[in-house]
Amino acid sequence: MLGRTYDGQHCSAARALEAVGERWSLLIIRDAIFRQTTRFSDFQRNLGIAPNVLTSRLEHFVETGLMQARRYSDHHDLRKYVLTPKGLSLQPVIIALTAGGDHWAAPGGPPVVYVHQGCGGRIHQRLACQDCDTVPPPAQVRTRPGPGARTT
Amino acid sequence: MLGRTYDGQHCSAARALEAVGERWSLLIIRDAIFRQTTRFSDFQRNLGIAPNVLTSRLEHFVETGLMQARRYSDHHDLRKYVLTPKGLSLQPVIIALTAGGDHWAAPGGPPVVYVHQGCGGRIHQRLACQDCDTVPPPAQVRTRPGPGARTT
Repeated sequence: MLGRTYDGQHCSAARALEAVGERWSLLIIRDAIFRQTTRFSDFQRNLGIAPNVLTSRLEHFVETGLMQARRYSDHHDLRKYVLTPKGLSLQPVIIALTAGGDHWAAPGGPPVVYVHQGCGGRIHQRLACQDCDTVPPPAQVRTRPGPGARTT
Repeated sequence: MLGRTYDGQHCSAARALEAVGERWSLLIIRDAIFRQTTRFSDFQRNLGIAPNVLTSRLEHFVETGLMQARRYSDHHDLRKYVLTPKGLSLQPVIIALTAGGDHWAAPGGPPVVYVHQGCGGRIHQRLACQDCDTVPPPAQVRTRPGPGARTT
């Protein structure tokens, strides 16, 4: 799990999936971002995940810099797992996955919605073109090599 | 793999991850969306993925309705795998993962950028509040139960 799983893929999505592509990883990140969960026992209870799997995921997040482990009790040697800015930057991934699942698998409406803390309005994710300021339909979004593309 | 892996999670992100949460799944979807890859042999060559894993992922996508399998040669009984609208709706997930990886793991700049086919401008993903039309900072995005939340 700790290697470059997608080593042959020169692509930032592949790099992100090396950090969060294992089973349960993104649901742990979801709870950390949106439920402010930090303690092993809380992740375990909310997710119903096997303790050995949870340990493995949290340690991987610490190794990859998505979380910091901080001791919160000397007596019990207990640690809490706190998201770093790198971990928090996965918020759009969770919101995009939610939108997908809402679309296919939520016949009664979304189980959870995202709202703006400031005004209570619903939050939506959009693509926008920074040059012409339009919202392009999905078929008009293309890829091209960026500045970090390999030239060899 | 075919069960409700995250059965206890009443959340659309969990439902989406049941379809695309396995290793390699999202990179296969990425190639289907942005390289228009449809053939087994092309996925296999682009990704360097083990054939048995690729078979399993493509069959799962057909079962979950992300792809349709269509025969393209009677002689060889070869099939191509074509994204459905459900599969195409994962485009924002790939773009969000790419943005995360660009941020952490692309010191030479993004290997791949997303552009608007219409004008060639760079595409970015943004959150927006539909009530006050602002772009909220990540910390101001909260969750609340939606219309499909369980009431029991």
